Amino acid sequence: MKLSTIGEFGFIHRIAPPFLKDLPNSIVGIGDDCAVIPWNNDTFLLVTTDMLIEDIHFLRAKIPPADLGYKALAVNISDIAAMGGIPTSSYISIGIPKDIDVEWLDEVYAGLHELACETQVHLLGGDTTKSPAHLVINITVLGYVKADQVKYRSSAIEGDIICVTDYLGDSGGGLKILLENYEQDNNAKELIKSHHRPRAHLSEGQWLSKQKGVRAMMDVSDGIDSDLHRIMESSICGAEIYIEKLPISPILKQVAEKYNWDASEIAATGGEDYCLLVTIDNSYFEDIAVEFEKEFNRSLFEIGKITKANSGLVYLKQNQQIRFGKHGYNHFI
Amino acid sequence: MKLSTIGEFGFIHRIAPPFLKDLPNSIVGIGDDCAVIPWNNDTFLLVTTDMLIEDIHFLRAKIPPADLGYKALAVNISDIAAMGGIPTSSYISIGIPKDIDVEWLDEVYAGLHELACETQVHLLGGDTTKSPAHLVINITVLGYVKADQVKYRSSAIEGDIICVTDYLGDSGGGLKILLENYEQDNNAKELIKSHHRPRAHLSEGQWLSKQKGVRAMMDVSDGIDSDLHRIMESSICGAEIYIEKLPISPILKQVAEKYNWDASEIAATGGEDYCLLVTIDNSYFEDIAVEFEKEFNRSLFEIGKITKANSGLVYLKQNQQIRFGKHGYNHFI
Repeated sequence: MKLSTIGEFGFIHRIAPPFLKDLPNSIVGIGDDCAVIPWNNDTFLLVTTDMLIEDIHFLRAKIPPADLGYKALAVNISDIAAMGGIPTSSYISIGIPKDIDVEWLDEVYAGLHELACETQVHLLGGDTTKSPAHLVINITVLGYVKADQVKYRSSAIEGDIICVTDYLGDSGGGLKILLENYEQDNNAKELIKSHHRPRAHLSEGQWLSKQKGVRAMMDVSDGIDSDLHRIMESSICGAEIYIEKLPISPILKQVAEKYNWDASEIAATGGEDYCLLVTIDNSYFEDIAVEFEKEFNRSLFEIGKITKANSGLVYLKQNQQIRFGKHGYNHFI
Repeated sequence: MKLSTIGEFGFIHRIAPPFLKDLPNSIVGIGDDCAVIPWNNDTFLLVTTDMLIEDIHFLRAKIPPADLGYKALAVNISDIAAMGGIPTSSYISIGIPKDIDVEWLDEVYAGLHELACETQVHLLGGDTTKSPAHLVINITVLGYVKADQVKYRSSAIEGDIICVTDYLGDSGGGLKILLENYEQDNNAKELIKSHHRPRAHLSEGQWLSKQKGVRAMMDVSDGIDSDLHRIMESSICGAEIYIEKLPISPILKQVAEKYNWDASEIAATGGEDYCLLVTIDNSYFEDIAVEFEKEFNRSLFEIGKITKANSGLVYLKQNQQIRFGKHGYNHFI
């Protein structure tokens, strides 16, 4: 059987059970943004790992090497943010094809170092090897979180408000510009920057994890369409999303109008936004949204609500149910 | 500049300095088998990561998938053994080309699960993605060690006895049989098994780390020729190795005689033995060797001694200095 038959998540469901069996109750393994391990009385250790492979996750000719280094670390830090954690150290394995120059790699490490300094995440080790054809970068990040603040994908409850901590779709728009060779005017460059230098929502994650009423949390990596399915699986619930409420940045709006793109579809399925997808107890949402705006000078965007188990993911536009053609980024298809 | 000009270790020396600057004294970063991080009062957290790429580290047609999964985990556990530690959890990133069947991957995970059970190392997470051409497996392993027992590469002192915890060269012999298509008789199969299913010397590492007089320790991954250079760099010392004392297994001896191989050269430069390379205070060595034999029913093989700084790595055969043609496994050349 080929992997495309069962997809990335089907494959994970297939191989996970023997490894989840016999796991101590105190540990959260496969299935959330990070593994969660008891550290001491009131703190959990967080561990996450992400692999970027040339021609799958990036095109070497299209991404400046410093951005590649920056992004490889950022996507891991984003997983720590999604648990409400503080990242502390990183480990990089790199497989290098022989046509890459040392000076180009210097830039990769300079970009990585820039974000390591910004976030105070020490690079403490790794593995350096050659690769027969494609550049491969795997980064592991460790962090920690107070035990009473950690947030999981599995805590959403029917009636929760679903919200996101930033605009959606800028990264997806940037990728579209790169792949389809649109003109790189200033707006286009901004979208590409969102794609190449995502900002992990660390402060937002830490702040939200301290608010009473915040339930499930994860980062938007594959697009909310795919990511909401992860929350629905873990929390055993459904979700409905209001298309008109998907937050589209003024820049994406302009670019989408110019090229006649469906901005809502990009927002829902583009992926790699690396803001946070959060579910909040209905009765706490308004207060939290007000405080969030004061704290971050930006809205906490309400986009939908959690519904009962087995009701699936439903998109509503002017109260009509609609479907998107593409359901988030799924590897193997 | 191409990477082959400076080699793997030249590259690591080039990119490491900005990341080592400003590192708290309590943390050991790039440059040992594991990163070492304070965990609580008397325990350190250990972190190691290793990447295996098809056609660089293994040939898909030559390694049974279960052995590949087993080995990918074993080489990481070996790094924990090298610090005297106990491994606890692992994280696997896998990049999968589309011509690989799910059933073949099931076997990879079965081999990994087998060793995970043997060593009680929980698989707690990872990343699953596609790869354009080559299978890539990156594993990160966490472990811990008592703060007063951790062993580093940097603790060797002039006069120390250099020893290894097992025969050398079986794995290198197995690789030679695979690459050069020798007949796979029973002896050959044993050597291939050493190459495909290395045993991390966890018990030996933990036992040695508790013995007074044990100084530097690392695992034999690239071959003692290359690995001793790592100890010499970290400890600022030289080393001499007695060729006649390199421990060659009866099986490798037979196979080497049959095909007229230089067993000593394979022992020194073959690599992937994954036993431990240890330096021990001269005055403690004999007692430790006696106790080691009682404990493990196997010799602690003395192979040379640590010499003063800047005296290089010298091989002696019947008191004559000799050179090997190949200096361990160096990536990028």
